[in-house]
Amino acid sequence: MRDGPARSMIANTPKPPYYAVIFTSLQTENLKGYGEMAERMEMLARQQPGYLGFESARDGLGLAVSYWKDEASLLAWKSHVEHQVAQKLGKKTWYACYKTRVCRVERDYGAGESTPET
Amino acid sequence: MRDGPARSMIANTPKPPYYAVIFTSLQTENLKGYGEMAERMEMLARQQPGYLGFESARDGLGLAVSYWKDEASLLAWKSHVEHQVAQKLGKKTWYACYKTRVCRVERDYGAGESTPET
Repeated sequence: MRDGPARSMIANTPKPPYYAVIFTSLQTENLKGYGEMAERMEMLARQQPGYLGFESARDGLGLAVSYWKDEASLLAWKSHVEHQVAQKLGKKTWYACYKTRVCRVERDYGAGESTPET
Repeated sequence: MRDGPARSMIANTPKPPYYAVIFTSLQTENLKGYGEMAERMEMLARQQPGYLGFESARDGLGLAVSYWKDEASLLAWKSHVEHQVAQKLGKKTWYACYKTRVCRVERDYGAGESTPET
């Protein structure tokens, strides 16, 4: 998953407002099953109504940001049955600590190929 | 800077609401001067009124999130003279593409040492 094309792209999100969920984490040393689960969750998230995109990077600290059309769609994903199992495993096994921040994106701007200046 | 202690910590932000600026980027191959500038900017940002914290990671895609008390403080930092020079150099030299998203953090939760469950 880390090497997949989705990982190295800036999410092509629509015009704000929309929502972002910032998930910051430090992992434990027990990452058994983590890679497969992360891949599965990324694939499942993409299928959810209101999903707009995903960006992530890790070098020690891990940052993963998922983008959503509105609060209803991010809350539906949070309570998705398979995602709940993943969240429990994450808390119990893979993450030494983490923080989730739910945000309303109010404006954005950028430059370059995947994000034309707006 | 990448190896500094600030890099591997989850930001200890106050109770929401507060603001987050998500900066997502892909670098060029010309990173001359980048490391020193990034270090200087991180140091300067920490001194600004309303600064609440910083998190970043890069593995191909770069994600950097800075947290601010309110819009006024993040806008003041955006227009800081030295930061403006850095932004221009970044656009011209270091970033192949980037996107900046200004967000209002509406709620957060977490677990583990640096972020007690709230």
